Amino acid sequence: MSDKPAEPATSPEIVAGNGLLHRRLFLTQGAALVGTGGLALLAARPAGAETLTVPTWTKTIGAPMSGYGVPSKHEGKVQRIVRPGAPGAPGTGGSRTPLELVNGTITPAGLHFERHHNGIPDIDPAQHRLVIHGKVKRPLSFTVESLLRYPTVSRIQFLECSGNSALGWAREAPQQSVGSIHGLLSCSEWTGVPLSVLLDEAGVEPGAAWVLAEGADSAAMSRSVPLAKALDDAMVALWQNGERIRPEQGYPMRLFLPGFEGNMSVKWLRRLQVNDAPTMTRDETSKYSDLMPDGKSWLFTFTMGVKSLITSPSQGFRMQGPGLYEISGLAWSGAGKIRRVEVSADGGQTWGEAALTDPVLSKSLTRFRMAWRWNGGPAILKSRAIDETGALQPTRDELITQRGERSNYHYHGIQPWSIAATGEVTNVHA
Amino acid sequence: MSDKPAEPATSPEIVAGNGLLHRRLFLTQGAALVGTGGLALLAARPAGAETLTVPTWTKTIGAPMSGYGVPSKHEGKVQRIVRPGAPGAPGTGGSRTPLELVNGTITPAGLHFERHHNGIPDIDPAQHRLVIHGKVKRPLSFTVESLLRYPTVSRIQFLECSGNSALGWAREAPQQSVGSIHGLLSCSEWTGVPLSVLLDEAGVEPGAAWVLAEGADSAAMSRSVPLAKALDDAMVALWQNGERIRPEQGYPMRLFLPGFEGNMSVKWLRRLQVNDAPTMTRDETSKYSDLMPDGKSWLFTFTMGVKSLITSPSQGFRMQGPGLYEISGLAWSGAGKIRRVEVSADGGQTWGEAALTDPVLSKSLTRFRMAWRWNGGPAILKSRAIDETGALQPTRDELITQRGERSNYHYHGIQPWSIAATGEVTNVHA
Repeated sequence: MSDKPAEPATSPEIVAGNGLLHRRLFLTQGAALVGTGGLALLAARPAGAETLTVPTWTKTIGAPMSGYGVPSKHEGKVQRIVRPGAPGAPGTGGSRTPLELVNGTITPAGLHFERHHNGIPDIDPAQHRLVIHGKVKRPLSFTVESLLRYPTVSRIQFLECSGNSALGWAREAPQQSVGSIHGLLSCSEWTGVPLSVLLDEAGVEPGAAWVLAEGADSAAMSRSVPLAKALDDAMVALWQNGERIRPEQGYPMRLFLPGFEGNMSVKWLRRLQVNDAPTMTRDETSKYSDLMPDGKSWLFTFTMGVKSLITSPSQGFRMQGPGLYEISGLAWSGAGKIRRVEVSADGGQTWGEAALTDPVLSKSLTRFRMAWRWNGGPAILKSRAIDETGALQPTRDELITQRGERSNYHYHGIQPWSIAATGEVTNVHA
Repeated sequence: MSDKPAEPATSPEIVAGNGLLHRRLFLTQGAALVGTGGLALLAARPAGAETLTVPTWTKTIGAPMSGYGVPSKHEGKVQRIVRPGAPGAPGTGGSRTPLELVNGTITPAGLHFERHHNGIPDIDPAQHRLVIHGKVKRPLSFTVESLLRYPTVSRIQFLECSGNSALGWAREAPQQSVGSIHGLLSCSEWTGVPLSVLLDEAGVEPGAAWVLAEGADSAAMSRSVPLAKALDDAMVALWQNGERIRPEQGYPMRLFLPGFEGNMSVKWLRRLQVNDAPTMTRDETSKYSDLMPDGKSWLFTFTMGVKSLITSPSQGFRMQGPGLYEISGLAWSGAGKIRRVEVSADGGQTWGEAALTDPVLSKSLTRFRMAWRWNGGPAILKSRAIDETGALQPTRDELITQRGERSNYHYHGIQPWSIAATGEVTNVHA
């Protein structure tokens, strides 16, 4: 077969400019194609002698079972993108989920992004204590074992560092992968004890309005959390994707605040102090605040904005000739569920609706998929998400008009990718 | 505080005998308790000097980031339960998910159960081919790279070996953990190409009704799949929980048949042959069939029955004195969604409805939770699930009445756990 597959006998309906096709291709698991001539040998080749040839690995007894499995040796390149902090600050920095190398919505724990302020503490879970104190009737101390006695909840939800996508603010679009730019973003099934239950055990005093959360790392990373959030959907998380939380995610326990900027979900949680007012810690004043054009700063930008990314194709990919492609990406919002994702193949002139993969969960990653027939010419791909509150993901220009160019945090503008006639995919401001 | 916590000021409503409480305790994330006096110091202790004492691990810079994370060294006991096959058959056997040590519904890939017939083949993904042949218009060959061009779908669904829980057939209830008895059960987010799309590329001939699926392991494990299932929700899975499928799960690709007995989801998939009739392979005749009391056998029992298990407390646990406990477990059905789970604390005389954790997905694991005030006396805990077709999980006696005692497969009877006044939890037929 050639690089240019024949047109299908029955083409799916075109829904937007430059070859975007109706999402039913994905809503029906492809069944809509059956009987229509299908994808007309999109990438398959005629079967030859391999049907009868027994592979070498079938001729010998395979490897035995193991207590705890690891990825294939052929997938060694699938690693977090590690970015150490400043020289002389060995415990600082971040590592990013390689979003271009994963699929679905769950992030395996081994690839969950990291952001540490002074390294991963080596905590003995038998010695660790979580203390609730301050404006409470009964200051309390919890061991890991005692927390395991309390009611638990489980939720599949995203965590995104407020500094994610900060390169979006740069005047030149960086030629880095989608994981390298946007990979301070992961999604897990978190299981833990509702914080409301623990605060109720301690008995919050009238007038209290904030809770200081402090970690046991040597940065003593600490943030002020509104009491309303603490009593709403906050949890003290003990499990991640079924197993106990990994060391770099806060072992043996972390705060988890669905939809809020990542660093408020304090890892290695050791102390919750109920207060009248925010504590104005280093990590919520000099850091994690956004400098506005008028010289003032935004503080307490807790809820992560509605956002989406096309992960395939994306920077660094190379198209394999004209024909049908799946455009695949992720959408999320700190405010709730994703209502709709739209994709453009003509730089934003026209938009078509993408298929959302069930289940669409609140404050979670939603995988979207769309069929695209690339004609081999230049194209600009974009996605934009709308959440259940009606909020629409802004363009980069709209963000800069609103907030200037000196924010380090909370970038959630549309991410365009440019497709060249050569098949090369690059990052552009467009 | 003593081992006997005080009664809460306002007790949640009792819904069934021997202390089962209304599920609202879990439906509202515990918020129902706030202001009521809560759990009255269920397990917390008054805070002391630890509030001000800085732990040793906070005083030194922590560990650096890593490309691929691993569990805490303190969780080394959380391993699959490995059961090699017969002596002289090194590639056979199974390993089980330690269901008593995990929580939520997602199984981390490292703990997903294994069942191998001749070990894990060492497949070079660049050399691997999937061939579709037989009664098709165009026999086709797919590389991994070519499959990546096709539309993909993602679903969170369970996989259960048809031999799971086989010890349920034993006349003596075995004193083994819930994972040891029932751990040939795991749940992942699977992402891959709908098989209907690939069969459509090949063009199924009229009259075809079955598809033989064969693995590239040295057992050439093979099963016949009804064409209707292949065109419904079957997929060729390439990713598991976001990353590429692990070697022991079929790297680089496996068949995945939601709700069907596990071994039909053929791993290391190398061949799909479209046929008029089932092939009657070794693995669907001498194995994976159920001997009935009249000497005949059940063949082709594909859909896994509706089932549930209490994972906490369960065999080997020790209760920590009278008081409030969370009963937690898993429910699933090969026929669709779980509609309802009921729990009994009096051996099945009375039943209360458990809280189901959202999202309740089709052919997936559903975590259920229920509050129980243990009075310190003997108790028998049971759970039973009802699925969306109305099917009710049977008792062990009902299963034996229907099917005799010579089935090795498809056990899905109710699992009772006995609580002694000493706090010891044991397995019983009751």
